[in-house]
This record gives sequence, structure tokens and C-alpha cells, in this order.
Amino acid sequence: MSDPRHHERVDPLFRALQEEVVAMLARHEGTEEGFRDDRWEHPGGGGGRGRVLDEGRILERAAVNFSHIEGALLPAAATRRRPHLAGAPFRALGLSVIVHPRNPYAPTSHCNVRFLETTSKEEPETLWFGGGFDLTPCYGFEEDCRLWHEAALDACRPYGGLELYRRYKDWCDRYFYLPHRREPRGVGGLFFDDCMLGTFERTLDFVTAVARAYIRAYDAILARRLPFPWGPRERAFQLYRRGRYVEFNLLHDRGTRFGLESGGRTESILASLPPLARWVYAPPAEEHAEADLLGRYLRPRDWLGLGGEGSDPDSDEGGPVP
Amino acid sequence: MSDPRHHERVDPLFRALQEEVVAMLARHEGTEEGFRDDRWEHPGGGGGRGRVLDEGRILERAAVNFSHIEGALLPAAATRRRPHLAGAPFRALGLSVIVHPRNPYAPTSHCNVRFLETTSKEEPETLWFGGGFDLTPCYGFEEDCRLWHEAALDACRPYGGLELYRRYKDWCDRYFYLPHRREPRGVGGLFFDDCMLGTFERTLDFVTAVARAYIRAYDAILARRLPFPWGPRERAFQLYRRGRYVEFNLLHDRGTRFGLESGGRTESILASLPPLARWVYAPPAEEHAEADLLGRYLRPRDWLGLGGEGSDPDSDEGGPVP
Repeated sequence: MSDPRHHERVDPLFRALQEEVVAMLARHEGTEEGFRDDRWEHPGGGGGRGRVLDEGRILERAAVNFSHIEGALLPAAATRRRPHLAGAPFRALGLSVIVHPRNPYAPTSHCNVRFLETTSKEEPETLWFGGGFDLTPCYGFEEDCRLWHEAALDACRPYGGLELYRRYKDWCDRYFYLPHRREPRGVGGLFFDDCMLGTFERTLDFVTAVARAYIRAYDAILARRLPFPWGPRERAFQLYRRGRYVEFNLLHDRGTRFGLESGGRTESILASLPPLARWVYAPPAEEHAEADLLGRYLRPRDWLGLGGEGSDPDSDEGGPVP
Repeated sequence: MSDPRHHERVDPLFRALQEEVVAMLARHEGTEEGFRDDRWEHPGGGGGRGRVLDEGRILERAAVNFSHIEGALLPAAATRRRPHLAGAPFRALGLSVIVHPRNPYAPTSHCNVRFLETTSKEEPETLWFGGGFDLTPCYGFEEDCRLWHEAALDACRPYGGLELYRRYKDWCDRYFYLPHRREPRGVGGLFFDDCMLGTFERTLDFVTAVARAYIRAYDAILARRLPFPWGPRERAFQLYRRGRYVEFNLLHDRGTRFGLESGGRTESILASLPPLARWVYAPPAEEHAEADLLGRYLRPRDWLGLGGEGSDPDSDEGGPVP
């Protein structure tokens, strides 16, 4: 049996975080008007609320989606560490944020927090959290990467210090990796799954800290980059790099597969895709911006100069060891 | 042991078909100049030749790719019917064609012929052909669908008559299906795999007839549709519908997965993607062109008025029974 006190704590908190994210993004957009408010129901039980801005003035797309669904059969994609749970009845709560700004100097960002519990009447409940955030620039800035990773470290510090940051940072580097391109998707951040840090309450506090760190860090990066002037050259490069984002999400992302396989709402799941993306056949590799991006930014790096070894023994994802 | 007389027959024939396709497309483009000629080698042995036009005047992208590779481990995606062959050394020859015209009234088309043989020194060889062609309009025309399916029937007739056409037509309807959208990718055509129609020679003749039927039919459809005037409204709808094409190829297409998993050349495999694609969050469903497309065209239909039942018992793909 699952304990209702768990999801009854998570639900209002994730909803409140959704409001906080929308408020931050609406400040940059200049208005909250374009953010639709779509409420939807899940056939198996529960539903969600999507706050999605399409074709905004500043943010070409911003999707801030809350969902709280019940399902009869936990998809295998949901947990690699506990394969015996595949097929169990479950409840999943999540807040998922993806922002694709118009300005090519302002990076795409992604943040997710999620809570999963099995709800079999016979078996004792199993519950865990997952989440993280990551940044995908097309033009790299060292100071943005440092700010981003400092926020990640700050969120982790009270719950497991440097060790927790390193572990989830490495996991992020491995998870957001395109094997067919031999490229990371972005400059990383945090990624974690099957997470319980002692108690339920403590882990809930941790994922809340993660979401708030995302809001603070992305707010600061948008404020820095949105004033940069840009033109057709930067736009073309951005659309081309967005193709990689589409490739990752559709070919490799476990979250996307979990969502589609579990009968999630397709429009909400694929709201992560950029509004416009371009594919170029075998472009010349010497293009300066791309060489700089790939050579300096799209590689697992010790952004905070912490030194030491990092390699998450629990990670089951495909990237190379940093 | 594999018999060299097989791939030595297939190789020059597929190369010749590549030239024929490029010649037909170049006539519509007005020149063969923009078609690059990329020759590449495969690390495991063999290689390929890509004739790709990017950002042409008439054809926004045309990819006509020949490959002949040797591999050490046959990927599981290569054959569903013979799972015991997964992991065997193999040779794969293929010609793959994808055309994305600029004019939204001219449909996207895809054609593929392929030959696969295992090359284990201990085991007797196993060999088979695969292939087909399918059409993806954003604006449907009944007469184009009929012409397309008549060409498909003509190719099948000498090798198995109406029954063969029905079987491969049904397989196509099931294969090119997006379960997460509950939509077919296009108006179908032919799809077949694990194919041997009696002898090697006879099956080679059949796949040659399939490729030639594609050339004839697509040539005729381009000639009809390219003169149609179009503007920003049609372009926006085309880019939006192209998003579905990307979703199918990256989420569901077994050919794409086979290529990427077998260490194929990423640029060649992903040359199937449209040059530009758009995603719109939850667009209004009442848009006339889309309602017409979904309601009348994107559904398995008996385009030739043949009547009777069609359901391929060998199909292992996910679409609903027509």
C-alpha cells in the first residue's frame, strides 16, 4: 500500500514550483499572457497542467508541465535498477521545464523533478525521486557554465556535499550524450534517478532545492545573454544545433520514451522539442562557432576546478567516462 | 560461406539504380550540379557513395545513398523473424532515397532496396532482400495516391500478383505508423523484409522492378505538383507536418536504428531528415488542410478499389489492422 501522505505532500509543492518557474520566465518575456493554461486528464487516473508559451517574443518556446498520473503498468523505461517493478501499478508526479529562447546566445535549458511510487495493494510501496537540470548553449560562455554548476553544487551541498554533486554531475554528463554523434547534448548540470537521501522528507527538500537552484541560475543567465545582439548567421547555427536536441530527445531520452510508452500526453511530452530545427548534410566542420562549442564546451569538464576523480558507479547510461 | 556471385550481382545493379534516381531528380532540379558525390569507407569493411542535394532550388533535400558494408555483428534490429542470426557476421547492400521538395504540394517520398547476407565461415549463408517505397504528402491528391499504388501493383504483379501487392501494401501501412500520434506517416506504398521469392535472381528482379516503379511514379507526381503555386501558409503547414516525419524516423524507424546501431555513417543515415521542421504545441485541430489530410489520406485505404481483405500475417509492426 502506498501512503497518501507522500503524494499529498509532493503534489502541491510541485504545483507551487511550476508557478515559480512561470513567474521567472514571464519576467523575461515581459508578460504572462502567452502562457497557455492547459489542464488535461489521464485515462488511467490523474492528469496534469501545462503552462506552455509558443512563439513568444523572447522565448520561442517555454514548456512548464506538471503532471500527476496513475498507471496500471510501470514501463520498463521507468527504472533500470529495479527491473522487478516493471509492470507494477504506479503513481508518477513530475514537473518538467524546457525553454528555447529566440536569442541564439541565450542557452536552452531543461529542469525536471519527479516522484514515483508503486501502488500495488499486495506489495509494500517502493518510492523514489528523480530530477536534475542541464544547459544546452549553442554559443558557450565559461562564466555561465561556472554559475550553472555553482548552483548545482549549492543545491547538493546540504544533502551530500561535494560527493553528491560530483556523482549527479557525472551522471548528467553520461545521460545527456549522443552516441551516434559522439557529442554531449550540452554542458551538463545534475541528473539523478532512483534517489532517496535518507527519508522521504529530506529527499523532497533536496529536489525542491534543485528546482530552486535551476530557477535562480537560469534567471541570471537569461539576464546576461538576452541583451546580446544577433542576426541570421547566429540564427542558422542555432537551428542547426537544435537538430541535435531533437535527435537526443527522440532517439535516446528515457524520459521521453517513458512518457510515450506509459500513455502520457503526447503534446506535453513533445513540448520539449524546439519550435524550429534544421538539418544540414555533412556541414563543413571548420565553422568557428561549432569548433569552439565542441572543443571547449561540449565535453565533460570540471567547471568548478574541484579536481579529483568523478565517475558514478551507479550510472547505467551510455556516455564515455569523463 | 557466402557466395560472392550474389553480392557481385547486387552491387553494380544498386549502383546503376542510384544513377537512374539521381538522373530523374536532376531533371526536376534543372541540374545535377548540386548533388554532392561523397564516397566513404566503413571501418568494418566496404563503404558507400552518397549523392545528396542540400538546399536545391526545387528539391530542398534529396538523398540518394548507396552503401555496401561488412559487419561483424548483425544488429537485432536487422531481422525480427530470424532472431538466431543476431550477432552473426554479415554483409549489407542498400540503396536509400529520400526527397523533400520545397513545394508543399509536392509530397516527400522514400524508396529503399536492400540485400543482406550472413557471412559466417561455419554456417550456411542466409540471404534476403528488403525494400519498398512510400509517399508522404502534406496536401493529399486522390489521383496521386492511385498512380502511386498502381505503380506498386505493377511492380508486384509478375512476382506474386494482387496477393503480393496486398501483403506488402498492408505491411507498409503498419510499418509507417506513429503510435504516439495514432497517425500513419503517409499514404503508403510497399514495404517488405526477409523477402525471397523463389530464387535469388527472381527476387533481385523484383526489387529492381520496385525501384524502377518508384522512379516512374515519383517522376510523374513531381511533374504534376511542382507547378502548383504556394506561399507562407502552405510552407508553415509543410514544416509542421515534417515534424511528424522526424518523429517517425527517430522514434520508430527500424532502418534508422539498424543503421546507427550497426555503426553506419550517421550523416548518411540522418540525411533522411527534412532540412527544416517545426513543432507547434497543441495546434487547433480544425485547420482545414490538416483535417482533410488526416481524415481522407492518412488512413489505410484501398486506393485501387480492389476490395477484399488484406492483413499481412507476417507483419510484426505496430499499426492497427486496416
